[in-house]
Amino acid sequence: MQFASDNTSGVPGPVLESLGRANEGYAMGYGGDALTTQVRDRLRDLFEAPQAEVRLVTTGTAANALALAVLTPPWGAIWCHDAAHIECDECGAPEFFVGGAKLITMPGDHGRIVADTLDNSLARAPRSVHNIQPAALSLSNLTEAGTLYDPDHLARLCTVARRHGLGVHLDGARFANALAASGASPAEASWKAGVDVLCLGGTKNGLMGAEAVMIFDPARAAEFDLRRKRAGHLLSKHRYLAAQFLPWLGDGLWLTLAQRANAAAERLAKGLAALPGVTLRHPVEGNMIFVDWPEDLARHLRTNGAVFYDAPGPGTPPTSGARLVASWDTDPRQIDAFLQLARDIPADAMAAGTG
Amino acid sequence: MQFASDNTSGVPGPVLESLGRANEGYAMGYGGDALTTQVRDRLRDLFEAPQAEVRLVTTGTAANALALAVLTPPWGAIWCHDAAHIECDECGAPEFFVGGAKLITMPGDHGRIVADTLDNSLARAPRSVHNIQPAALSLSNLTEAGTLYDPDHLARLCTVARRHGLGVHLDGARFANALAASGASPAEASWKAGVDVLCLGGTKNGLMGAEAVMIFDPARAAEFDLRRKRAGHLLSKHRYLAAQFLPWLGDGLWLTLAQRANAAAERLAKGLAALPGVTLRHPVEGNMIFVDWPEDLARHLRTNGAVFYDAPGPGTPPTSGARLVASWDTDPRQIDAFLQLARDIPADAMAAGTG
Amino acid sequence: MQFASDNTSGVPGPVLESLGRANEGYAMGYGGDALTTQVRDRLRDLFEAPQAEVRLVTTGTAANALALAVLTPPWGAIWCHDAAHIECDECGAPEFFVGGAKLITMPGDHGRIVADTLDNSLARAPRSVHNIQPAALSLSNLTEAGTLYDPDHLARLCTVARRHGLGVHLDGARFANALAASGASPAEASWKAGVDVLCLGGTKNGLMGAEAVMIFDPARAAEFDLRRKRAGHLLSKHRYLAAQFLPWLGDGLWLTLAQRANAAAERLAKGLAALPGVTLRHPVEGNMIFVDWPEDLARHLRTNGAVFYDAPGPGTPPTSGARLVASWDTDPRQIDAFLQLARDIPADAMAAGTG
Amino acid sequence: MQFASDNTSGVPGPVLESLGRANEGYAMGYGGDALTTQVRDRLRDLFEAPQAEVRLVTTGTAANALALAVLTPPWGAIWCHDAAHIECDECGAPEFFVGGAKLITMPGDHGRIVADTLDNSLARAPRSVHNIQPAALSLSNLTEAGTLYDPDHLARLCTVARRHGLGVHLDGARFANALAASGASPAEASWKAGVDVLCLGGTKNGLMGAEAVMIFDPARAAEFDLRRKRAGHLLSKHRYLAAQFLPWLGDGLWLTLAQRANAAAERLAKGLAALPGVTLRHPVEGNMIFVDWPEDLARHLRTNGAVFYDAPGPGTPPTSGARLVASWDTDPRQIDAFLQLARDIPADAMAAGTG
Repeated sequence: MQFASDNTSGVPGPVLESLGRANEGYAMGYGGDALTTQVRDRLRDLFEAPQAEVRLVTTGTAANALALAVLTPPWGAIWCHDAAHIECDECGAPEFFVGGAKLITMPGDHGRIVADTLDNSLARAPRSVHNIQPAALSLSNLTEAGTLYDPDHLARLCTVARRHGLGVHLDGARFANALAASGASPAEASWKAGVDVLCLGGTKNGLMGAEAVMIFDPARAAEFDLRRKRAGHLLSKHRYLAAQFLPWLGDGLWLTLAQRANAAAERLAKGLAALPGVTLRHPVEGNMIFVDWPEDLARHLRTNGAVFYDAPGPGTPPTSGARLVASWDTDPRQIDAFLQLARDIPADAMAAGTG
Repeated sequence: MQFASDNTSGVPGPVLESLGRANEGYAMGYGGDALTTQVRDRLRDLFEAPQAEVRLVTTGTAANALALAVLTPPWGAIWCHDAAHIECDECGAPEFFVGGAKLITMPGDHGRIVADTLDNSLARAPRSVHNIQPAALSLSNLTEAGTLYDPDHLARLCTVARRHGLGVHLDGARFANALAASGASPAEASWKAGVDVLCLGGTKNGLMGAEAVMIFDPARAAEFDLRRKRAGHLLSKHRYLAAQFLPWLGDGLWLTLAQRANAAAERLAKGLAALPGVTLRHPVEGNMIFVDWPEDLARHLRTNGAVFYDAPGPGTPPTSGARLVASWDTDPRQIDAFLQLARDIPADAMAAGTG
Repeated sequence: MQFASDNTSGVPGPVLESLGRANEGYAMGYGGDALTTQVRDRLRDLFEAPQAEVRLVTTGTAANALALAVLTPPWGAIWCHDAAHIECDECGAPEFFVGGAKLITMPGDHGRIVADTLDNSLARAPRSVHNIQPAALSLSNLTEAGTLYDPDHLARLCTVARRHGLGVHLDGARFANALAASGASPAEASWKAGVDVLCLGGTKNGLMGAEAVMIFDPARAAEFDLRRKRAGHLLSKHRYLAAQFLPWLGDGLWLTLAQRANAAAERLAKGLAALPGVTLRHPVEGNMIFVDWPEDLARHLRTNGAVFYDAPGPGTPPTSGARLVASWDTDPRQIDAFLQLARDIPADAMAAGTG
Repeated sequence: MQFASDNTSGVPGPVLESLGRANEGYAMGYGGDALTTQVRDRLRDLFEAPQAEVRLVTTGTAANALALAVLTPPWGAIWCHDAAHIECDECGAPEFFVGGAKLITMPGDHGRIVADTLDNSLARAPRSVHNIQPAALSLSNLTEAGTLYDPDHLARLCTVARRHGLGVHLDGARFANALAASGASPAEASWKAGVDVLCLGGTKNGLMGAEAVMIFDPARAAEFDLRRKRAGHLLSKHRYLAAQFLPWLGDGLWLTLAQRANAAAERLAKGLAALPGVTLRHPVEGNMIFVDWPEDLARHLRTNGAVFYDAPGPGTPPTSGARLVASWDTDPRQIDAFLQLARDIPADAMAAGTG
């Protein structure tokens, strides 16, 4: 009953086997190998973007921070949702990579920014020499609330950003989950909507530690390369990064894995929503679930082996809640066992929690 | 005939197999898994350093720059050899991670700094408010010239550094090769000699992309952790980093691989030294060879399939030379074929190069 | 009718005369002159802080950013009011000087933070390796809304900060105005309340461009010195900075000037509050006034020679408002002329603005 | 007998008087005042550069570091003489402002870089992704050795720099002394020779703390402005910076002051060169003198009231030497008294120093 994160899962067999094949013989380092070229070409095809440059790194934080650094000068500001991963969970990586940027956050129901909110915020942003200058919009799809931006919504936001002179970064740590949920094509969910740089996550969806950065304007790639090296993110034995992507991108495995995770989350969400005292905090549109529930229930589930993170509600004091994440290899039987456990909570377990 | 770098080689079977085993089941992320703890404990044992903190990252540049950032304030200076990897080959990573440090370089025959050179340089360093302040000594073992510091030499340098108030960083991208060559124990070649932070390289010696940072003073580890996260170098599926180290550290595989690379280099060096017009630029003490040789010979070898990097001599215009690196899986037959090819250079090939 | 800012005023005669006296003869540079020592000693006396270190710089932004850099590591977060000067008006200086810090802002009526707000915000701040770490509290007195923290309020905030492990910075660009308004002693309004570093503004209160940083824990001064030099803020002909302070601190001139500015603001505020359609947005406790008023009135005043900055209200679209600042040399007759002008607005001027 | 630095002198009467005049009435802040515009226009005229942008700051370190930051990306390298002020005396300011740049130093007799040295150094600079990228050439005129670049020499260096794709910064802390010595026009000694950004020093030549940055390509000015604000170097009461320049630039006062300083240095140098055991280390072409002389003589002079800095020679152990700087107000009688004192050294004073 492991619902802590999609990064607690391993990788599917084909990824391991690909590493084994990649291991044979010598290969030039730093991306000068044949597999890296194959990944680039495959992504160009999938995204209908023959000119796009593709760069591989090992973590989403690196991908995001490097991408933002290419879009933002040191005196620049990055607009994002107030729950964005880059704001909350990367220990200041964007600020470090950019050289002292500021993140300007916006509220938005269920993790989504509304175009008018963005427009108003940018319209009010002063641009004198005393102010940090608007430079980039950073979106996440799936959002941190597990919800989805459909391509139209994305496009509206990108249009606003562009009108105010901002570049657009998309944190796609769960981009495959978003594609699987929306049915949009990779291009529709990225550059066709107006995204300049996409961080396409592999790690949370079946890779060991591999993220692809899609730079749709190839003129930006040279700066990215120097920043990547300088940040220690250019791997010498680069073939092992590329090798993870090849089977994943081939035959649509990345989408298959994401669909499985999304389906598992849906099964779990339905079961949870039917429980007394449990409410879903956000629509479940991908593989993440946020619930508000009694602290006693959380304790009962944990005591009996379930693993998940608390996600307190916004009140003072914070109310009880949790985040549950399904993965590509989440077993439906584990979901059912978890739900059964929740239904079987003894009356005195609830009582015990009071006071 | 692949002698470009030890990073063009793959990994030995046990490393791949370990990844396969590590892939089973769920594991908590960010180093909270059991394998990471095993690696830490194993390294503490091997280094006779029960208090040392161990951190894993994917590249040597990241390891070095993070380690230096822990030893050096933004207004600090790092003393190093003028051919140091951190000075020449990391695109300013130390300057970026530290926040604007300066590297003060020193000459030294065959890549080695002599204690008196260091002492004189530090004695002359002004320390008023107008000057960047001496903060760290960075050494490499093997050096960038492929030579070795024996533990006594290391200890003399560390003593000088300590006397002037500097911390000591050791870039051990080829630390295993140094151990294999010197017969020193891991402890003798690191903290017993006075090293504060060691970057123990795995990638060049049979891992996919895995480096261990040994922080001998555990009080420095908390800062390292925040810097690592902030730089995007904390891997979520951390077990795959740890899994690479386990078979490598077990049964002395790391030293076995390094011995093989060193032996291959020795074989190649002997053959090269016997060729007319070829001289070894530095003593060959590990797995790297630097030669001065005619440009025609280099061209002949390349044309016939040998792979290596040019390493021009220091003159103006630069003289012809090359770096040849042996790896854990360098085949002696390839060495012999390479040497035979060199001996078989046709007279007109030499002539062709002139003018 | 100049109410744009207290920095549009010149300096009183004694400051000019002091520069003339300081100009005689030679003086060692970089603070090694006698006048700098006199300023230090005078401030130590006035603040009852014989151990405090004093550093002079030319701008408030430099003073604030350097002070914050001494209190905050690169991965640190600075808590402040959401209207703080360091957040809104310094083009990211704290982020630049600290090396990528984050500012965490809090709301608070009339520019003041309430202790419970701070306590709750800090209590909710996650402190795992994924998060930027709470490091400093930055307060302003006067606040950006022109209001005052009395010593008890300051002390409550500092106590909360200290309990959570934060250092405290006080942006005292208008510290003299705060003292003049509250009657508190310099010590009560700074270190006795728990402030670690005070930026004591001179420029807005009658100096040419001179701010004193009071570092109450002298152990922090050495780092400040290196950061100041490195930021280009160590003046060589330092005597001209010191010379500005001497007459200002002697005989209480700094407080006299501040009292004049506060009194002028009070006179102006009373007159404004009596006008139809004009309301004071914040209590007027120092030398700054914020009004909500009709756009037509603002236009009428400007057209007839009044100078002030717009300060739109927070609505969407923003409502009409302005900031008016009185200075040490604001002439009461100018205030009366301004008020008369406002009262004399023709009916058709109001009409003209509609639509 | 004050020869420590030209920054130990005060300012001439007209500068003080100009401050007095500037003090009257109100003036908009941050450079929006009339005097600042006058300074800009005057400098455009003097430099025959109607399009140049002019920015004022208070220190040479700020001017240099801001100028270099505009020419250099974070991954860029700055070529300079190994005795350059930016390398030796600014506590890493360029590295801080650029965000982690590297300074590549070159030797050169008497503080001057020879074009071939620069060309060879740049030709050897690797430009792969592993290397910091050549970005700027920084020259000083006068040099740190007190010598002069004539316009032809400057132009040759700038041509080499431009051919390799570098921008050119000129540290003109003693630019007026260079003009006075060479007879070149301001334009010939700057943009006509190929300089992109000139830091024109006022402080060492009779101002209180005022430097003008001449940005010959106005497209670079917007970035400069944001960097200046963000570094705390945009003065609010900007009129006091501008006011210093007006009388200095009017009627050629800046060149008159520099001529006086140069003439004083020449008088001092001639006297010193005639003394037994004293040699001039560099040609004296401006207002700075470097001597090699016996330690006993230095002690004798100091004991009797002379003030100057030691400037040890490059040997190991360092030999005895000193730097003596003349200023615009150096009194010839003080020079003569100093020389007489040197000639009158008692025989036993020399003996005392031995052993």
